[in-house]
Amino acid sequence: MIGVFDSGVGGLTVLSALHKAMPNHDLLYLGDTARVPYGTRSPITVVRYSLRVASYLYEEGIRTLVIACNTATTHALPALQAAGDSVGVRVFGVIEPGVDAALAAHIKGSIAILGTEGTILGGAYQEKLRTRAPTVPIEAVPCPLFVPLVEEGWTGGVVPTQIAEHYVGHLRGRIDTAILGCTHYPAIEGVLREVLPGVKLVDSAVSTATAVRDALGPGDEPGTLRFRVTDHVERFQRVGERFLGFPPDPVEWIDLPEAREPFALKNGQ
Amino acid sequence: MIGVFDSGVGGLTVLSALHKAMPNHDLLYLGDTARVPYGTRSPITVVRYSLRVASYLYEEGIRTLVIACNTATTHALPALQAAGDSVGVRVFGVIEPGVDAALAAHIKGSIAILGTEGTILGGAYQEKLRTRAPTVPIEAVPCPLFVPLVEEGWTGGVVPTQIAEHYVGHLRGRIDTAILGCTHYPAIEGVLREVLPGVKLVDSAVSTATAVRDALGPGDEPGTLRFRVTDHVERFQRVGERFLGFPPDPVEWIDLPEAREPFALKNGQ
Repeated sequence: MIGVFDSGVGGLTVLSALHKAMPNHDLLYLGDTARVPYGTRSPITVVRYSLRVASYLYEEGIRTLVIACNTATTHALPALQAAGDSVGVRVFGVIEPGVDAALAAHIKGSIAILGTEGTILGGAYQEKLRTRAPTVPIEAVPCPLFVPLVEEGWTGGVVPTQIAEHYVGHLRGRIDTAILGCTHYPAIEGVLREVLPGVKLVDSAVSTATAVRDALGPGDEPGTLRFRVTDHVERFQRVGERFLGFPPDPVEWIDLPEAREPFALKNGQ
Repeated sequence: MIGVFDSGVGGLTVLSALHKAMPNHDLLYLGDTARVPYGTRSPITVVRYSLRVASYLYEEGIRTLVIACNTATTHALPALQAAGDSVGVRVFGVIEPGVDAALAAHIKGSIAILGTEGTILGGAYQEKLRTRAPTVPIEAVPCPLFVPLVEEGWTGGVVPTQIAEHYVGHLRGRIDTAILGCTHYPAIEGVLREVLPGVKLVDSAVSTATAVRDALGPGDEPGTLRFRVTDHVERFQRVGERFLGFPPDPVEWIDLPEAREPFALKNGQ
């Protein structure tokens, strides 16, 4: 079983890509909706929440964990990999596949990274890009209003276009590739195409799914999809449909209070 | 000592009004920034988080609690009052003073309530208004993008005005009073005045401060201001300055993991 973890609904784009790429695997999605959004939180808080969620999923018996959240990957990937190693769970993030896809698409000019405040300040994308392609200039731009716009379903028209112009208009003519470094952003791809004509927009959901499938193989029998959330089942189904294409079902509410010992994992370290 | 509790930075508008109205009282502000925003969470989760914060403040020795958050007042006021009764703490919310002020300002037409999704769906403002003035028509409008706009400091210009027009433009000519039912909204008062000319905008911070002062008296000696947050001290100081007029100081980070027993309070019930 593969666990797919996000702070909320955005990771459903990754789940959807995984399900298409490897329909013969069981997928268990966990949206930490009681603590969403991770994008404005401090690194230590994101690490703590992520370890809490991971320890729950490990206890549920997953053998693979996909961190379908850019902010959680940015801050918590090393901690989650260390914890995963101790219990035999393989851990994938969305950043490395996104960087690979961006470098494959890039020809000239800069590569832009668009993300939450946490993802941009965390610098994991920048670091990975610099390691892989030290000479490619990088533009890293936080776009804080994109998530609330998408969650409200306001993904086209004058206001979203003006907000996109405000954040990324200055990149026009200077970049040829932009990494959508937040799982919500593919939902406003249309607006971004208008503001950044000709720019290749890299959605890491598909490249992450490909990386996971290459590592695990196709699987044997038709897989199942299940969903768990730490708050509101109804809101998750309503907003989640925009990301998944159909209402997530079955969705179960789980109680996931934080561990008293911040970094303790029940299994292992 | 008076405890002032908000999900994040917005309650600093209430703190500021309290400090002006009663400078001779010690004020301890707690922003639950590790779990902000409350506005999109389910009622049960808001109750749970609020009780956790209150139990911490009770242990710190407060004798009065001001819930400086509309969503927390909407969902958790009865639970917090019950818990406060059991330990001798008097509890004030922002809704009743806001409703009183709106009814004092109202002459004809409808009264509008602008708030987060949670505050509007929770219905506490509507219920209180209906009880006090059964014949006054009510327009209750969720404005989800106002909080992220204000947190980003984007409080004037074309985009905020168009967003305000989108949410409340249809109220023009139909209301004479609007309750700013979220502590962030006074920061975009200028935009709202443009979109709703002539409408009286009721900021419950001032009316709440007046109600608390009337109940507690002026106090004896110059009071102190202290701040505690459950995440990022730096972000709280940076964003908080917009609400308080000066950077909050001293700010202390506290660890406030959720109780394992959701509704247990250490003191009392």
